[in-house]
Amino acid sequence: MSAATFGFSVHALDPGSQARAGVFRTPHGEVQTPAFMPVGTRATVKGLLPEQLRALGTSMLLCNAYHLQLRPGAALVRELGGLHRFMGWDGPILTDSGGFQVFSLAQLSAIDDRGATFHSHIDGQTVRVEPESSIECQALLGADVAMAFDQCPALPADRTQVEQATERTHRWLERCVLRHRELGCESRGQALFGIVQGGAFEDLRARSVEAVTRHDLVGYAVGGVSVGESREDVLRAVRAAAPRLPKDRPRYLMGVGTPRDFFDAIEQGIDLFDCVTPTRHGRTHQAFTSTGVLNLRQARFERDSGPLDASCDCPCCAQFSRAYLRHLARAGEMLAAILLTQHNVRFFHALMERVRAAIGRGQLAQLRQTVLAPAAD
Amino acid sequence: MSAATFGFSVHALDPGSQARAGVFRTPHGEVQTPAFMPVGTRATVKGLLPEQLRALGTSMLLCNAYHLQLRPGAALVRELGGLHRFMGWDGPILTDSGGFQVFSLAQLSAIDDRGATFHSHIDGQTVRVEPESSIECQALLGADVAMAFDQCPALPADRTQVEQATERTHRWLERCVLRHRELGCESRGQALFGIVQGGAFEDLRARSVEAVTRHDLVGYAVGGVSVGESREDVLRAVRAAAPRLPKDRPRYLMGVGTPRDFFDAIEQGIDLFDCVTPTRHGRTHQAFTSTGVLNLRQARFERDSGPLDASCDCPCCAQFSRAYLRHLARAGEMLAAILLTQHNVRFFHALMERVRAAIGRGQLAQLRQTVLAPAAD
Repeated sequence: MSAATFGFSVHALDPGSQARAGVFRTPHGEVQTPAFMPVGTRATVKGLLPEQLRALGTSMLLCNAYHLQLRPGAALVRELGGLHRFMGWDGPILTDSGGFQVFSLAQLSAIDDRGATFHSHIDGQTVRVEPESSIECQALLGADVAMAFDQCPALPADRTQVEQATERTHRWLERCVLRHRELGCESRGQALFGIVQGGAFEDLRARSVEAVTRHDLVGYAVGGVSVGESREDVLRAVRAAAPRLPKDRPRYLMGVGTPRDFFDAIEQGIDLFDCVTPTRHGRTHQAFTSTGVLNLRQARFERDSGPLDASCDCPCCAQFSRAYLRHLARAGEMLAAILLTQHNVRFFHALMERVRAAIGRGQLAQLRQTVLAPAAD
Repeated sequence: MSAATFGFSVHALDPGSQARAGVFRTPHGEVQTPAFMPVGTRATVKGLLPEQLRALGTSMLLCNAYHLQLRPGAALVRELGGLHRFMGWDGPILTDSGGFQVFSLAQLSAIDDRGATFHSHIDGQTVRVEPESSIECQALLGADVAMAFDQCPALPADRTQVEQATERTHRWLERCVLRHRELGCESRGQALFGIVQGGAFEDLRARSVEAVTRHDLVGYAVGGVSVGESREDVLRAVRAAAPRLPKDRPRYLMGVGTPRDFFDAIEQGIDLFDCVTPTRHGRTHQAFTSTGVLNLRQARFERDSGPLDASCDCPCCAQFSRAYLRHLARAGEMLAAILLTQHNVRFFHALMERVRAAIGRGQLAQLRQTVLAPAAD
């Protein structure tokens, strides 16, 4: 690890899997791992205040360089003191490079070895992103962790397409590392994570790990697993990549997912997660609970005076009934989305707290059974 | 005052006007007056949690019997422990009877001396409301204060129409008082306020005060002033009604308004207000500030690193820049509405705090000048 401000240490190993519990140190504080990062795409976790996130147990957030570059612009965020100050979050932040968004949200018009040209999803304007410009944008935003700019092939993709995208990702990583070094980002408190690609092909994943870990980086990510694959494909990719990554660096599985996905990945040695599930589900009135996912619009909750989840310690479960939540959801009240988002975020963090404790006690397998047995998900 | 659980005492009189500062005691706590009640139409102040309202200085809320009767239903709210428990607010609540909503929101199909028949604004269903059923509905909801069911003539209305509606309101009040007594509401902790009508006609307002105050009620309201009148008409109505109401009872001006309206009415002896302005303005990204109303979507705030209002102590002003608020507003992020609503509600409460202090010092006129001079509103 090349800068004193960053560090990762493992303090417990699960005897029955590759799972580990550790601490990822960043300039803005420590992250106990395994950890879940709520997604604050446009410099806000939809509907929640920073103080509420803290109270729910959030330690690190993800924001999207792609969205922030388009609006309000990275230079403006820099001018206003950087992303932490702009959004009022003084804990660690990771910015996604935009690779995933360019290939999923935007209307891609051209891609070559130099970079990608696309049309903004906001106003159709032509935008060019290259590895160097992505690193420059993220340097302006000033998150604790910047992600390399990768090519994330959209599905369906055959082996040749995945192989080409993976090799391009490796060439782009060279340029990201170089630009990151030229800008002196790490000494100014920003680490770079490389991204392993390779689709659901085990040998491509293994080769990608080899290529990406040739660079001595603060952390490594497994990418390209939230673009529509089956759960089996994701697991195959994670199995092929995660255990091969350096044991003394944090491993981040991008864009995943649900409680079952977490257990699958943690058992392969993954430390960090992000996903829109808790926030997006909250806005569509779906709640993750200890008895599975509930849709709060359902008529069966009309007269239900009980809490959303009796085993949850979030503000929503402490104060409100399912009947009230159903009323708010049916009426289209903002508070329904706010309360259900709070609950879902807390549910994910509380799950990770239990996972870390279980790894410490060597009882991850038992926890998996307890958590996943009653869930429909 | 007929029940020990309710009380009103005046502890300061402004030497230059009819303004007074006092305390309105209810079964769920005290309200320092003059006071502003945020509107929680459907058992939620849009976007805010009860604990946030408390922190902003809210002491009493208004909810709408009309909306709650249609959805989720007053009997259901009762079954779930009543409105306070349902919405997690343990402070005082007042429910509007539905008179105003029936004549403004709903598609009115018939009105006679027995009551009104209308079509629900939600699903078009035919609904019948009479004075007795309105009181029964409010008794089920269980707020601290129920409002009489009145006829609120929509504008334009000529003198004959206003006179007829006012006299019907008086006849309906008799029936409201009777039903309220039959149900034993006051001994169960619910007061009834009568409503003075009379449009912008001074003599009709004076006659209405006489008719309404024939009933010994815990408080009295001035209604029919937020249906599209000019500021001058509202002021004329308030001038004709408020000073004639009993000095030892709280006086409530319904559905008003803006800082200037508050000063106008407080000077006539009004103690309580409610209005959707702070919450609705918040959702449309308009902020009440010490320098007037600001539209946060405007380009001039793009690079503005200053707080929304430097003289405000709300969480929004303490933590975020105008540039961030503008970014959130343009991006359509929920947090823009949440933060601007918090700010606006705090602005209204802080204004009332200053008003109460100024009345105590005998300096209301000076405060009026200080507050209204820089404002465009």
